[in-house]
Amino acid sequence: MMQTVSFEPIGVVRSPFAQLDGMPIQPIGARGVKGSVELNPELEQGLKDLCKFSHIILLYYFHLSEGYSLHVVPFLDKFPRGVFSTRVPRRPNGIGLSIVTLLGVHGNVIEIGEVDIVDGTPLLDIKPFVPQFDNRSTANNGWYAQRVEDASELRSDKRFVTP
Amino acid sequence: MMQTVSFEPIGVVRSPFAQLDGMPIQPIGARGVKGSVELNPELEQGLKDLCKFSHIILLYYFHLSEGYSLHVVPFLDKFPRGVFSTRVPRRPNGIGLSIVTLLGVHGNVIEIGEVDIVDGTPLLDIKPFVPQFDNRSTANNGWYAQRVEDASELRSDKRFVTP
Repeated sequence: MMQTVSFEPIGVVRSPFAQLDGMPIQPIGARGVKGSVELNPELEQGLKDLCKFSHIILLYYFHLSEGYSLHVVPFLDKFPRGVFSTRVPRRPNGIGLSIVTLLGVHGNVIEIGEVDIVDGTPLLDIKPFVPQFDNRSTANNGWYAQRVEDASELRSDKRFVTP
Repeated sequence: MMQTVSFEPIGVVRSPFAQLDGMPIQPIGARGVKGSVELNPELEQGLKDLCKFSHIILLYYFHLSEGYSLHVVPFLDKFPRGVFSTRVPRRPNGIGLSIVTLLGVHGNVIEIGEVDIVDGTPLLDIKPFVPQFDNRSTANNGWYAQRVEDASELRSDKRFVTP
């Protein structure tokens, strides 16, 4: 049995979305949506050089979701899928990943765009998005292949909020 | 003050790299390197449909690194950078992110390629890599711009292991 891993949030995400219901399900559905990251002030020096990047990766805690099912019906589908073949918030470890645009850094605040994250979400990590590390031009869309075009239109509902 | 977030590892990563020293620093430097994910057996049903994807995102715990500095000299550079503008393992919350190729799924074991992860690393999450969600064709390389070509050659050293 492996050891429990504990993290202290490094800040909080601010966005226009007060709840999961009605939110874009991916950054590609959140064009024009602006928000910010409020980093804990004592970590501000860790933001040096970040402003040079156009995109950043946010890892955060799905704090509104609890528990999980191994088979789920995702927003983009009508069929049950294995939870690890989906991006749903209710998963064994509720870590969210969003690639957002970086609009500016002011002190301990990062202005971001294409935000698909609920206001008040605890932030776990910030990484620079590096195209040569993170793009995969040959990747396929798996079961999303028939559905991915809908991702920019679809909105979240309540299904992955803790019942 | 936000609440501590705790996760139970969902499995373990197996790779040819027994230590950080000498390991590729990114999957793009790990072509031909194969490994596997051993998912906890009780979660096996969560892998349904995953085999349809060519690439998956692994989130894991940098278990060999402890503590952090807000300014660090990354493998790819000679200058101190803000830790959040780098991908170094020693960071406030030591969560690693690798996009690996999916070679096959057999029961609770996933065969993977382009592995840049130390053997025995505790796994936190598996997500499908979905090109329309995860590729950013317009992103820039930030301070990595002059250095990214070296990423496929460079190897890790001991600097981010706990002193």
